[in-house]
Amino acid sequence: MNRDVLSATKKYDMLSYGDKIVVGLSGGADSVCLTHALVSLMDSLSLEVEAVHVNHGIRGEEALRDEKFCSDFCKSLGIKLTVFRFDIPLECKKTGESEEECGRRIRYECFKNTAGENAKIATAHNLNDSAETVLLNIVRGTGCKGLCGIPPIRGNIIRPLIMTSRDEIELYCKENSLDFVTDSTNLQNEYKRNIIRNVVFPTLQKMNPSVFSAFSRLTENAADDEKLIEEITELKYSECKTSLGLDEEKLLSYPKALRRRILMRFLNENIKKDISAVHIYNAENVVGTAKSITLPGKTILAHRDGSLVLSEKVEENLPFSVTFNVKDGIVEFPYGKLKIQTFTQKDLQN
Amino acid sequence: MNRDVLSATKKYDMLSYGDKIVVGLSGGADSVCLTHALVSLMDSLSLEVEAVHVNHGIRGEEALRDEKFCSDFCKSLGIKLTVFRFDIPLECKKTGESEEECGRRIRYECFKNTAGENAKIATAHNLNDSAETVLLNIVRGTGCKGLCGIPPIRGNIIRPLIMTSRDEIELYCKENSLDFVTDSTNLQNEYKRNIIRNVVFPTLQKMNPSVFSAFSRLTENAADDEKLIEEITELKYSECKTSLGLDEEKLLSYPKALRRRILMRFLNENIKKDISAVHIYNAENVVGTAKSITLPGKTILAHRDGSLVLSEKVEENLPFSVTFNVKDGIVEFPYGKLKIQTFTQKDLQN
Repeated sequence: MNRDVLSATKKYDMLSYGDKIVVGLSGGADSVCLTHALVSLMDSLSLEVEAVHVNHGIRGEEALRDEKFCSDFCKSLGIKLTVFRFDIPLECKKTGESEEECGRRIRYECFKNTAGENAKIATAHNLNDSAETVLLNIVRGTGCKGLCGIPPIRGNIIRPLIMTSRDEIELYCKENSLDFVTDSTNLQNEYKRNIIRNVVFPTLQKMNPSVFSAFSRLTENAADDEKLIEEITELKYSECKTSLGLDEEKLLSYPKALRRRILMRFLNENIKKDISAVHIYNAENVVGTAKSITLPGKTILAHRDGSLVLSEKVEENLPFSVTFNVKDGIVEFPYGKLKIQTFTQKDLQN
Repeated sequence: MNRDVLSATKKYDMLSYGDKIVVGLSGGADSVCLTHALVSLMDSLSLEVEAVHVNHGIRGEEALRDEKFCSDFCKSLGIKLTVFRFDIPLECKKTGESEEECGRRIRYECFKNTAGENAKIATAHNLNDSAETVLLNIVRGTGCKGLCGIPPIRGNIIRPLIMTSRDEIELYCKENSLDFVTDSTNLQNEYKRNIIRNVVFPTLQKMNPSVFSAFSRLTENAADDEKLIEEITELKYSECKTSLGLDEEKLLSYPKALRRRILMRFLNENIKKDISAVHIYNAENVVGTAKSITLPGKTILAHRDGSLVLSEKVEENLPFSVTFNVKDGIVEFPYGKLKIQTFTQKDLQN
């Protein structure tokens, strides 16, 4: 039988009997292999498989050749193909996106429209893509989250080739006499990924021929660790939530990794702006001190009654007035509180 | 004042008032910078600083030049230097180690002998060394533990330059008019590290000039995460320990990352042989099944009364005899158990 290029479908339980699957088909080796391998399972798993091709309208002649190739390929397999045509360069001018971002967004929109609510979307990301993503994330400065690589499953998107290397994919195509075109989704100028792909990984592969498997093991371990830590974060987050914000003493008693994630969760939940690593870092330095900091969205992180609290920043020079009776007690102001204590002449003399 | 090359000493609380410190001095830029920077703190922190130089007996002329350089340098700083001389190539022939392994072992032995019980040992590992180690570990196929890089502190060993890049170190030497020699501890043929250092990182640095800081952040996050997960492992390990071994149902209810680490802890504690990743992987596949596996040291991991248990492997073809009365009940054998149930003629007919 065929080389087992779909090993990830078993490990991650991606396919169920009777599934309807929409495959993203560019015409490149990866998506040709994926489509062919899924079609070969149609009978035994009673799958419905169809394909979607997105013509990006870049490099006109070549794009038309790719489209025709996909059309012929699907005819030979006896499956339905839906073709979408776009003018990505024009779209980019409108939205200000890069061709890469724009192409990705539009592709996934097309996949989703075709799949609707009931079908799974299969994309042809492979082991090399995932390893490249991990190394790119590290070079850009990721936390451990970025080590998890391309997720095997996200919502109704599945990546059946995510455990399969590019070499295995090419071998599969050869063994099954499958033609393919140069991947037209491989849009121009993804400068950094190309260096990682064409310079760095070939060097690393000389040091360890199984370097992609090494990345894969790391990715899997990191994803397991991340899942565990997220579960604990969720648990401890609810434990240290107060009516005002976060219980500061409890927060301070947690290990650093947990404290950092609880703060991240708290800020992301309450501030509807981009919270970056530097904001989390600054927030960490507020815990257990008398400091307060200003965060995006004119929000202040400060201390009140043993809790870390978020409040809207009040413009500092605005005049304000508060009326109160002169008797002992606490009066609340926009900036904080005023404690009032009355004294007799005698008190002051002592 | 001087460039702050010792930032890690503050972050990791490496130095205390009155510390006695033994610095490993090769004569290279890193250890020259470290020694000079520590000496500049002697007065304010009331430190005692002395140095150790290990002459590896490789490349004779050059080794003698390095030794003389270190001797002159320490004289100029007014600190004590102890020199050890070895014939590493000869030593390697005796022990079968590589020159690199042997050199490292002997260096640390010399540092420890000089420091005794009461002094700290300072080594000059820097940010670049740590990032190289992380990438080397990834390429070799590490779990998340290998992302923690070179530890800033291990026992009484401190690495005050671990947050400082090689560029900053060279700038420090320039600003303080410090000469240095080509590091003679940089033993030959560390082939893989040289590729990482001279080919891979310069390429990554073109993509992100702050790539070493990016690795440093990852390393710090990974170390925090690892510490958290180790704490939870310790807690849950004691929760699922039984008199026989590990409670299988509890183990099965834990997230995978935890289950893996508890098994690792259990096997390492009970089997006094090298347990590798593949053994852990096989053990994971035993949990919740009827399977059993053979591990190093002729040990079997199997199931008994709801627990995962380790037992010595019994040679399979040994004859054995057990005497028992024919009545209903369980009889224990070396391989397992025999359930006995007696039937009347009538039972069998129904």
